[in-house]
Amino acid sequence: MDKATIVVFSGDMDKVMAAFNIAVGAASSGMEVTMLYTFWGLNILRKDKMGSLSKGILQRLFTLLNKGGTEKLPMSRFNMFGMGPWMMKKLMKRYSMPSVKELYSTAKQLGVKMIACTITMGVMGLGKEDLVSDIDEFAGVITYIKDARESKINLFV
Amino acid sequence: MDKATIVVFSGDMDKVMAAFNIAVGAASSGMEVTMLYTFWGLNILRKDKMGSLSKGILQRLFTLLNKGGTEKLPMSRFNMFGMGPWMMKKLMKRYSMPSVKELYSTAKQLGVKMIACTITMGVMGLGKEDLVSDIDEFAGVITYIKDARESKINLFV
Amino acid sequence: MDKATIVVFSGDMDKVMAAFNIAVGAASSGMEVTMLYTFWGLNILRKDKMGSLSKGILQRLFTLLNKGGTEKLPMSRFNMFGMGPWMMKKLMKRYSMPSVKELYSTAKQLGVKMIACTITMGVMGLGKEDLVSDIDEFAGVITYIKDARESKINLFV
Repeated sequence: MDKATIVVFSGDMDKVMAAFNIAVGAASSGMEVTMLYTFWGLNILRKDKMGSLSKGILQRLFTLLNKGGTEKLPMSRFNMFGMGPWMMKKLMKRYSMPSVKELYSTAKQLGVKMIACTITMGVMGLGKEDLVSDIDEFAGVITYIKDARESKINLFV
Repeated sequence: MDKATIVVFSGDMDKVMAAFNIAVGAASSGMEVTMLYTFWGLNILRKDKMGSLSKGILQRLFTLLNKGGTEKLPMSRFNMFGMGPWMMKKLMKRYSMPSVKELYSTAKQLGVKMIACTITMGVMGLGKEDLVSDIDEFAGVITYIKDARESKINLFV
Repeated sequence: MDKATIVVFSGDMDKVMAAFNIAVGAASSGMEVTMLYTFWGLNILRKDKMGSLSKGILQRLFTLLNKGGTEKLPMSRFNMFGMGPWMMKKLMKRYSMPSVKELYSTAKQLGVKMIACTITMGVMGLGKEDLVSDIDEFAGVITYIKDARESKINLFV
């Protein structure tokens, strides 16, 4: 079975939508797809409410700024303090385009493997308890490389 | 014939130049190259003047902000309200580097296939009449996946 | 020997760290890795102090804005005039994560080939004398394509 991997570094709504569209398209075309979430991409995997308060001040401050959850992703351009994403969501509804949340769950249903990058979780102030429960694997770069070198398509988003 | 694909998600002048340099390099090296324009990347394919005025308010507002055409692309860094791109264009001329417009037409002459992503055209407020006439294909992600899984080089820019 | 290439277009600390982690992971897994530095990515290769003062005004102005050297890279998000990178460096130390400088030298030790893109050096206002001395090659896109079409993993960061 042909494989594909996508490193989801970005947490920007527009980029993430492109990544999910490609993942869903590849999985629908019969490919075995892996998505590795790292840095800002981990925001997609975050629960709406953060659990752990035992973190240091820097991490708490950072977590306040860096809002997570699929509903709160900013845009890579024209974010305008949230007006950009609001406009885009309106337009997406008009064109019957699925939201990031819907794309994520479609990808899951099609068997796309979701891997959270353990190397960057700490720096991003995230523990396993802060992330959604349907992540397939917690792993690092070596696992990614093993997948990627056997894949026909490898993208960094 | 070896194939290559580039997803042009970005509409930033500097990134787009990198994408075109790679596309032109690959085509010159005898590869069959496909570029899929999506989201901000569609700006590269826009005519200077927008035709259709029958769109909704949100889309018209968005189109006003989101200037298109190869001459109006911003930079990913140091855009400074257009001063950055102006400076870079000056430097590019000094070093006899081709502009985005010239790179696009060189790529076309070398047979690079230009595909506009139909999934995102609506959300970006763009109809076929808003785009340049020499686009090779209007297609979605499934067409891209078919190309990409047979390609030696796949990039997301 | 399986090959991998990474185009380092970005000069953002977080993206560059992701690129180096992948490069180091691939090299540790026995792959032959090439990194091509272009546009802002060239900042990683810059010496702390710039030597040449014989450049034009535009380039000198640009060089003042566009700080280089591994210690001065901004972040792709939450840069906040340098507070973001400062916070992230603190967190990286706490989690015993290597800095960009350390990742670069680990990559070098593992035999990762570092190529500076000659096409963009001029536009970025950089001469060979402005870059660190352990660069393996000065080359353009044709060299990159030759490597990439033989590689199992190709990323654009």
